[in-house]
Amino acid sequence: MAIEPATGLHHPERDEIELPAVLHALSDPHRLEIVRRLSEESEPRACGALDSDLAKSTLTHHFRVLRESGVIEQTREGTTKLTSLRREDLDARFPGLLNAVLSSAAVAA
Amino acid sequence: MAIEPATGLHHPERDEIELPAVLHALSDPHRLEIVRRLSEESEPRACGALDSDLAKSTLTHHFRVLRESGVIEQTREGTTKLTSLRREDLDARFPGLLNAVLSSAAVAA
Repeated sequence: MAIEPATGLHHPERDEIELPAVLHALSDPHRLEIVRRLSEESEPRACGALDSDLAKSTLTHHFRVLRESGVIEQTREGTTKLTSLRREDLDARFPGLLNAVLSSAAVAA
Repeated sequence: MAIEPATGLHHPERDEIELPAVLHALSDPHRLEIVRRLSEESEPRACGALDSDLAKSTLTHHFRVLRESGVIEQTREGTTKLTSLRREDLDARFPGLLNAVLSSAAVAA
């Protein structure tokens, strides 16, 4: 797992992204919803902008699971954490998977 | 969750199959391997035929998670449990998902 000294946030490299971890990250309805919303954004979002009824500590946990599995990227900008979907990495590593999950989430919603 | 009195084994109906449960079922490397092998079979298989280093109780647990999420179907034939992938149900409910996961598993292997 790669460490980015500038942020202290762990992100796996593209070729370290593992399918079971990605599927696990996507197997929670709240995390799936976060990913669905991020998929609609072209710019990284501040976490706080993803409004949610969840407690902050719960949200932080979900973001960490998503980040450590390689689904999202988080960077710090001042005191804000910006979040974006690692669509390019996921599409390169597991072609078609993210789109299939997002379409399935739309069906299930 | 539907109960099949003849077998006592719980299977969700097609439209009760939930995406988070399916993704969770597929998020374990052993369960993913079971699904991958079943996907290569045209006939239901006896569980014992899916040889594995896992303890029987562990295998039973994995089969239950797969069955209760709607990924596999298990039927009893005499003293044998036959297992098959619910490909048609999964493809109807979440088009493209199973194939994307199986291709991704092949990439990851």
